[in-house]
Amino acid sequence: MDTNFASIITIGDELLIGQVIDTNSAWMAQELNKIGIPVKHRIAVGDTWDDIWNALDEESKHASIILITGGLGPTSDDITKPLLCKYFGGKLITDEKTLAHVQNIFINILKRPMLDVNIKQAEVPDVCTVLRNDKGTAPGMLFEKNGKLFISLPGVPHEMKWIMSNVVLPMLPTKFKTTNIAHRTLLTAGIGESFLADLVKNEEAALPPFIKLAYLPNSGMVRLRLTASGDDKEQLTTALNSHFASFKERVREYLVIDEDLPIEAVVAKLLKQTKTTVSTAESCTGGYIAHLITTMPGASTYFKGSVVSYDNSIKNKVLHVPKNTLETVGAVSEETVRIMAESVREIMETDYSIAVSGIMGPDGGTSEKPVGMVWIAVAKKGATITKRFDFRHSRERNIQLTAINALNMLRITICG
Amino acid sequence: MDTNFASIITIGDELLIGQVIDTNSAWMAQELNKIGIPVKHRIAVGDTWDDIWNALDEESKHASIILITGGLGPTSDDITKPLLCKYFGGKLITDEKTLAHVQNIFINILKRPMLDVNIKQAEVPDVCTVLRNDKGTAPGMLFEKNGKLFISLPGVPHEMKWIMSNVVLPMLPTKFKTTNIAHRTLLTAGIGESFLADLVKNEEAALPPFIKLAYLPNSGMVRLRLTASGDDKEQLTTALNSHFASFKERVREYLVIDEDLPIEAVVAKLLKQTKTTVSTAESCTGGYIAHLITTMPGASTYFKGSVVSYDNSIKNKVLHVPKNTLETVGAVSEETVRIMAESVREIMETDYSIAVSGIMGPDGGTSEKPVGMVWIAVAKKGATITKRFDFRHSRERNIQLTAINALNMLRITICG
Repeated sequence: MDTNFASIITIGDELLIGQVIDTNSAWMAQELNKIGIPVKHRIAVGDTWDDIWNALDEESKHASIILITGGLGPTSDDITKPLLCKYFGGKLITDEKTLAHVQNIFINILKRPMLDVNIKQAEVPDVCTVLRNDKGTAPGMLFEKNGKLFISLPGVPHEMKWIMSNVVLPMLPTKFKTTNIAHRTLLTAGIGESFLADLVKNEEAALPPFIKLAYLPNSGMVRLRLTASGDDKEQLTTALNSHFASFKERVREYLVIDEDLPIEAVVAKLLKQTKTTVSTAESCTGGYIAHLITTMPGASTYFKGSVVSYDNSIKNKVLHVPKNTLETVGAVSEETVRIMAESVREIMETDYSIAVSGIMGPDGGTSEKPVGMVWIAVAKKGATITKRFDFRHSRERNIQLTAINALNMLRITICG
Repeated sequence: MDTNFASIITIGDELLIGQVIDTNSAWMAQELNKIGIPVKHRIAVGDTWDDIWNALDEESKHASIILITGGLGPTSDDITKPLLCKYFGGKLITDEKTLAHVQNIFINILKRPMLDVNIKQAEVPDVCTVLRNDKGTAPGMLFEKNGKLFISLPGVPHEMKWIMSNVVLPMLPTKFKTTNIAHRTLLTAGIGESFLADLVKNEEAALPPFIKLAYLPNSGMVRLRLTASGDDKEQLTTALNSHFASFKERVREYLVIDEDLPIEAVVAKLLKQTKTTVSTAESCTGGYIAHLITTMPGASTYFKGSVVSYDNSIKNKVLHVPKNTLETVGAVSEETVRIMAESVREIMETDYSIAVSGIMGPDGGTSEKPVGMVWIAVAKKGATITKRFDFRHSRERNIQLTAINALNMLRITICG
């Protein structure tokens, strides 16, 4: 039996004018992969009858499962429901269960009267199976046609995720044969993509055809991913683990971690393992490092806090950087970040601390201290390391690169 | 003459397994829209010969301009260049200008020896026009076939953006007729999508066919967007402005701003206009509010800093919340955020301050203080307002909602 592929269609003019970034389909692809359903295509189309219709035709040629998100809201820019009704040859009827659910939301949660448009949300094509949506008023819908499955979901991320996790993902393996897919990822730092490729060329040449290699460069780090797929799960896992071990051994010098984790998760793991704590003193990153650290659940066990000293007066008043230092060598200097790191470590009583100061742009650079120049310090008891970086990108990317490099310096300090 | 549409093809297995989120195509769509080229489709395909080939065939049926990103790196998972060579019937030759550029990068910037794979980056199909890439080693390539334009760009965001901004976007209007497209957006808060739709139903009914209305709900706010397109620029602008004014008048009570700006930009505008300053004291958001504020260029004129008091000891030591308060009413309480806001405003000597404390989950909730419960305070001279929120979502979304609602409370305070 052939592999059953999925295609994801996202609907909405906002995707085609770039007003919103589509995070739904990346999440869906991830979850489908986990249960062994590879995604063939992802396509975004506007709120236009013909475009949606053609996308349904086209994607059902490539895939057995067509997932559709968006276009199910209560307002009139949403045409998906009538279109699906016509496409699958049904007529709209009121689904009593959904109506009761919508009424319950308005009476007990929103405590507001229902509008006609809300009642219409309980209407579904009579040819679909309704997929429960505990998180909102628009239900999901399942259609079958010529052995293909079409699943329409609301575009609001937490509603889509609830229906996927609770209804769709448990159901798919009962309807379709799934493939075994396994990924393993190495995160490296301090080596560029082409040098990494050169380093692992023998390991790459030794890969069997069912294992694919990919390089994913991002913010100064490169992820190296092996993907194995096939029918014999045991053979596949054995081969993947063995090849993965060779790659890991080869890149040892540059290895950050042998899992697909962001740097803030790597640092979280190390701090938990060593039962140590960290604080930050941030100027140019404006709290972004603290934010990254606290995106991890349970961060309160190892993160105590941060002083965001955006203004020089705060560097002096709260972090005790002498006025003289700020006036002579300046806020963006080795001396300033060193004092910031040591002060915040003392104030917050943590084992480690991070401090950053730099010029993120687009304005504020000088010939001596150009945009992108950053000093980073990491302090521990009795020792502070400092390093200068020069990034040459947009403000957004300079902030990201500063944060990621600062967390990587903390990682090296904890490991060393 | 018909409208010339663009299609965007993004290439990479990482997009289909959900390992990365595609931000490139949203940016490209935005820029193309600005110069009057609407985007018809966005499609993501894997690093697979047939899938890329078919996507080129398929998209050239729908669009005059096909933009392709990804698959141009130096490593062997990148098959785009040989494929394009074959698709357009050329052969690979070394482009001397590109080679000199790559050599310059290695000698003068990276200061490392070149590898064979780097030299190969200077190879291009002899049937393409090379598009300069000042930000990296992989050049862009332009092909023409049957009156359609195919533009291949590297997937690294800042390289793609440089080539688009400096080469592609200036060139397109010289090759194609562009359409006049204009968007105007109202940002509203405090009213749900369906109630908003009910509120503006008369204004919606009065719209001419060349103006489309869309609702974009996001993090507790709803954006209402009018899009006009057509050949007569003057007529279009006049009609759009007049209808926009009616919508604006109707939603006045809920209006945040009449531009497509995120809340942090709205707050930035107000603080600059009133020449006032702000600071934050953050517990559960871990620096995210300060980060949002400092994403705006020039934030240093109105933002002085933040104390991220994740641990209660920092709330006490740095922000002077009495131990007794933390022990009796607790960290997540009206009293605590009030003191946090007033203390940070005093320490940082700012006109306004924001303080937040809550339980973001997934753990840490109790029946009395459940996950999602948040207290927010905004202080100004002589007055502090506080408000309790109960969010019921993921950790990530709870942090976002807290930050956006805190910034909105600041906005209301400044305006009030």
